[in-house]
Amino acid sequence: MSAPRIDCLQYANWSEKVFRQMREGGLHAVHATVAYHESFRETAANIAGWNRLFRKHGDLIFMGRDGDDVVRAQQENRTAIFFGFQNPSPIEDDLGLVEICHALGVRFMQLTYNNQSLLAGGCYENEDCGVTRFGKEVVREMNRVGMVVDMSHSGERSTLEAIELSSRPIAVTHANPAWWHPIARNKSDAVLKALADSGGMLGFSLYPIHLKNGAACDIGDFCRMVAEAAERYGVEHLGIGSDLCQDRPGEALAWMRDGRWRESDVETPDFPPPPPWFKDNRHFNGLADALAAVGFSPDDVAAVMGGNWLRFYQHAFKPQ
Amino acid sequence: MSAPRIDCLQYANWSEKVFRQMREGGLHAVHATVAYHESFRETAANIAGWNRLFRKHGDLIFMGRDGDDVVRAQQENRTAIFFGFQNPSPIEDDLGLVEICHALGVRFMQLTYNNQSLLAGGCYENEDCGVTRFGKEVVREMNRVGMVVDMSHSGERSTLEAIELSSRPIAVTHANPAWWHPIARNKSDAVLKALADSGGMLGFSLYPIHLKNGAACDIGDFCRMVAEAAERYGVEHLGIGSDLCQDRPGEALAWMRDGRWRESDVETPDFPPPPPWFKDNRHFNGLADALAAVGFSPDDVAAVMGGNWLRFYQHAFKPQ
Repeated sequence: MSAPRIDCLQYANWSEKVFRQMREGGLHAVHATVAYHESFRETAANIAGWNRLFRKHGDLIFMGRDGDDVVRAQQENRTAIFFGFQNPSPIEDDLGLVEICHALGVRFMQLTYNNQSLLAGGCYENEDCGVTRFGKEVVREMNRVGMVVDMSHSGERSTLEAIELSSRPIAVTHANPAWWHPIARNKSDAVLKALADSGGMLGFSLYPIHLKNGAACDIGDFCRMVAEAAERYGVEHLGIGSDLCQDRPGEALAWMRDGRWRESDVETPDFPPPPPWFKDNRHFNGLADALAAVGFSPDDVAAVMGGNWLRFYQHAFKPQ
Repeated sequence: MSAPRIDCLQYANWSEKVFRQMREGGLHAVHATVAYHESFRETAANIAGWNRLFRKHGDLIFMGRDGDDVVRAQQENRTAIFFGFQNPSPIEDDLGLVEICHALGVRFMQLTYNNQSLLAGGCYENEDCGVTRFGKEVVREMNRVGMVVDMSHSGERSTLEAIELSSRPIAVTHANPAWWHPIARNKSDAVLKALADSGGMLGFSLYPIHLKNGAACDIGDFCRMVAEAAERYGVEHLGIGSDLCQDRPGEALAWMRDGRWRESDVETPDFPPPPPWFKDNRHFNGLADALAAVGFSPDDVAAVMGGNWLRFYQHAFKPQ
């Protein structure tokens, strides 16, 4: 069977339209954010909402639990949805909730989302104190149950420490190299080297803020960046984590940015406009073509578009 | 393989001692109460506690999810622990939490515990208004996901309505016939007939309050009651649900009885003393012998001691 197509981060406003576009874009698996700042109880309600979506749109999507579900999705022409947390809020201060959340289908958790968390330092803090005492316990527990440590929104020091501490390869599901577009959310060469050296994965983000020139970013420029990353880190460590937030109202961005931890001075923020070549899931077809156009071989295009994530998924989600 | 031995209700103070006694008593499966009046969040913490017990005592116990796990327990000389709620408190007012709790391993839920709940009327209320609007939704959802409706502590009308409403057979996991010992917690002949006619199961309780003459109850008298129930309802609908609360301090009884819904005038209640022939899991051996002594055939002893519950388990826990 040919390689699947996988997007390792989306927070779209889930709907039949979006799920149909996933099929049109050939996506066999999507890592979907199910919580930012939600408590455990609120997260359970979000997952219950997904359970309703799975019943209502069972012809298009189903809950993904391990790598074999991606293969099943290829066979059944559906999209497997893998749950993830962008922030550790759902586990509150309770180590036992890691396994509980894994039982509910959660397969990724970021140790931090921009800010200091109970586990580690965020990318927008002035100081990054590294992985905390509780954070070390949680990384060990995530390794045990099969939940991927995701450091997309974490600080440099915490990210390097997480790579070192984790006994299983970790992921930066959605970010770009800082040498291409130097912002706090993108990752340093040192981080990306350590990530690749440890068997980890980088998912390239298509969120405008993470792109050089934002919405005006040229798709060829983006793909040449991917090619340089392949030279630096090895193509086998690269995939896509688009950070697609399709159809979300500004209130969703306010929740992501501000949660309940501050009152924003912005009335309601607007999502930045996307580049014209990546507005929804159907544009994965053009992205694959554009990677080929800058010189990637068919095998390497397939690897970056999902084959690498599948290999990672096949080892990441089962208990140790 | 011979029939397994199953106890369909315990709330012991779980410990290595108790788990070893389960093995000595030949128990292959135990339905363990994981919540009375706990919120969803508190229930998750209780289940996390069980996850720790499964890791610590993996040589003795593991989490049971379906009937095949009972067979596995027989093969591996361990005891499968099946989770249940005695009260619907953990699902709060959220239909979606039924499926969430099922994913966490919960296989039984009582619609009420003595009192009026959001779902139905309890056995100690003056009025039993029957299964509520929310209750009907929850019964349908429990049927869908594979969670057994348990009416042990419910009122007469609610129990009859639940039998009627449920598309899958229900259970009274731990109670005795009121014609043998007429208290509100024991079940009328009408209820037990309807239960059996619908393919449901009764688990006989060994909790002293539910026994004729309490702790002074004669084991032969108990077994003759089982024999009469077999004549009235058919032996295939009968099993054991001992309600063993071994090693629990009085505070546990206070939690069971009073939760947070009233302040008791009793300082700390004491658990009633058990009959000398049923103090812990090892006494299941003597119980099997006593059933044989009142005339049950070896096949019928095996059926009552677990074969019937296994057959029920094999159809009850999988999604529809």
